[in-house]
Amino acid sequence: MPTTRTTVLFRRTPDGLPKLDDFEIVKDTLPPLADGQILIENRFLSLDPYMRMQMGGGWTYSGTSLKPGDVMVGRILGAVIETKNPEYKIGDHVVGRLGWRTHAISNGNDLDFKIQQKSGVPLSAYLGACGSNGVTAWVGLKVVGAVKPTDTVLVSAAAGSVGSAVGQIAKDMGCKAYGIAGGAEKCRIVSEEFGFDGCVDYKSNDWPERLHAMCPDGFDVYFDNVGGEMLDNVMAQMKRDGRIPVCGVLSEYNAAGEPYGIRNGRLLFDKSLRLQGFVLNSYRDKWDEARAELVSLIGAGKLKYLETIANGIDLAPAAFIGMLEGKNLGKQLVRLS
Amino acid sequence: MPTTRTTVLFRRTPDGLPKLDDFEIVKDTLPPLADGQILIENRFLSLDPYMRMQMGGGWTYSGTSLKPGDVMVGRILGAVIETKNPEYKIGDHVVGRLGWRTHAISNGNDLDFKIQQKSGVPLSAYLGACGSNGVTAWVGLKVVGAVKPTDTVLVSAAAGSVGSAVGQIAKDMGCKAYGIAGGAEKCRIVSEEFGFDGCVDYKSNDWPERLHAMCPDGFDVYFDNVGGEMLDNVMAQMKRDGRIPVCGVLSEYNAAGEPYGIRNGRLLFDKSLRLQGFVLNSYRDKWDEARAELVSLIGAGKLKYLETIANGIDLAPAAFIGMLEGKNLGKQLVRLS
Repeated sequence: MPTTRTTVLFRRTPDGLPKLDDFEIVKDTLPPLADGQILIENRFLSLDPYMRMQMGGGWTYSGTSLKPGDVMVGRILGAVIETKNPEYKIGDHVVGRLGWRTHAISNGNDLDFKIQQKSGVPLSAYLGACGSNGVTAWVGLKVVGAVKPTDTVLVSAAAGSVGSAVGQIAKDMGCKAYGIAGGAEKCRIVSEEFGFDGCVDYKSNDWPERLHAMCPDGFDVYFDNVGGEMLDNVMAQMKRDGRIPVCGVLSEYNAAGEPYGIRNGRLLFDKSLRLQGFVLNSYRDKWDEARAELVSLIGAGKLKYLETIANGIDLAPAAFIGMLEGKNLGKQLVRLS
Repeated sequence: MPTTRTTVLFRRTPDGLPKLDDFEIVKDTLPPLADGQILIENRFLSLDPYMRMQMGGGWTYSGTSLKPGDVMVGRILGAVIETKNPEYKIGDHVVGRLGWRTHAISNGNDLDFKIQQKSGVPLSAYLGACGSNGVTAWVGLKVVGAVKPTDTVLVSAAAGSVGSAVGQIAKDMGCKAYGIAGGAEKCRIVSEEFGFDGCVDYKSNDWPERLHAMCPDGFDVYFDNVGGEMLDNVMAQMKRDGRIPVCGVLSEYNAAGEPYGIRNGRLLFDKSLRLQGFVLNSYRDKWDEARAELVSLIGAGKLKYLETIANGIDLAPAAFIGMLEGKNLGKQLVRLS
């Protein structure tokens, strides 16, 4: 049994993009388990943009942000290696938001789910395509976005782990699916690997015109991961009664100064659009249904995903910074053991 | 039987606030009725801000705007004075979007409803408090806003015919209701006559601070009639999971130049807000239920309303301009006969 663990702490609020010394890596001794607890050896850590918000600076989630010395927030997938809880046995795989650390102690209440059966799906996918990213895509598209098979769907950050799932779930339903991504290679992957009907590169200045040329009738659903100016531009290309689930605001996680002012807000009224922010935790009642469908799509080869994996917890801060810079392809993970 | 009628035509797109000569008043001869048609003598014309949008200039409804020479769009309440349609008899009162004119010919398909029974409610209310304004308030609050009895509701243009109904319907449900209106007298009416829990005057520069002081816990529903900077400010005072039905954009009907840029758009995500534009025509399936409830509220003295009535169709353009300038109190009507 291990007696120590390694943890990444939040040290201070970054000025824009985080730097390595905004984090602190510490070792501590694992306490003995109390009754009802389990010891989890973490295998993978999921890195996601929302973590940047929790580090503060200008914008933060309302009411939730890290204080210096707190464990960095994040979902892990791990194996139970010691148990004093009859609901968990050694070897069980669990997923939960237990933070950036090699080992975690839990009483089960803070876990998202136990992986119930061998499904043929690789374990790491339970943090991505059939984990929080895939479920976020599913909930945002089907519940918040109320997508119908006849809809035309657009998603930003389309090469990412949420965006790529959005387009593939939409295609499986019979929708048309288009993406916005950064760079020719990401656009190629979105179209060719993930099977979208098309993708525009937002790094070209005329991307709104290219998007319009690609899909002149406009969009019923825009799954928004970016916010800001991109959202403003896309609102002009929405169809009447369109829905815009707002899953994230990538454009502003590192932004300093005055936020971008959305000038097309009036189109909400003119076109009866619905713009709705959401977080996964508000839809816990849908998680099991979503995950079951995602596992089945992966098994059928209809939901592909990419992973970028850093090795070892010491590399987690650098991998996180790289992800915020867009260096990863698909889901950014850290392998912990 | 009358042989001629008077009609107000759209002449040209105004530059900002309309002027009298952007309209043209004409007389024409009434054609004989064909089978299936009825002749309606219009009693009241409803004047509403959406008409400004249909006059064009900068912003218009997507896909609907007037062309020079078109009859000005608007709802009327009238009495059937000749009938070749077995579903309508002489003396029936009907409401429909038949335009700014003294008489209209209809086959029934373009009517909103026939007033079914004497309910004790004055006829003119069927264009306002239990007509399109009241039904707009009801649909926006209950359907789009998904209001619950425990909610705290805020409405802009609170002294207006839609806004005053929003607050009173909310109060009847058990909600707290607050308003934003222009000027001390309108605020007094909102609080004292319409029974809101409070009202702030947006003409004071520190109205956002006053609003916060009045209701420091924030709002679950903001019924938005104004858009722009007011919406931006209110978004900062919404509670988590708040809903914002967008019923109109008064701030921009006459605005020239660049529209206001909404900087708090990111709060949609941070607070999981829902911002949803709507138009009454999309909720026809709710009209009967809404109107029945509104008639009952008026009868019980729980839904009060004010009217400003101009006399004669020749005064319709001036009354419309006055309404856009905020000179009316409550529902602006024109009495036609």
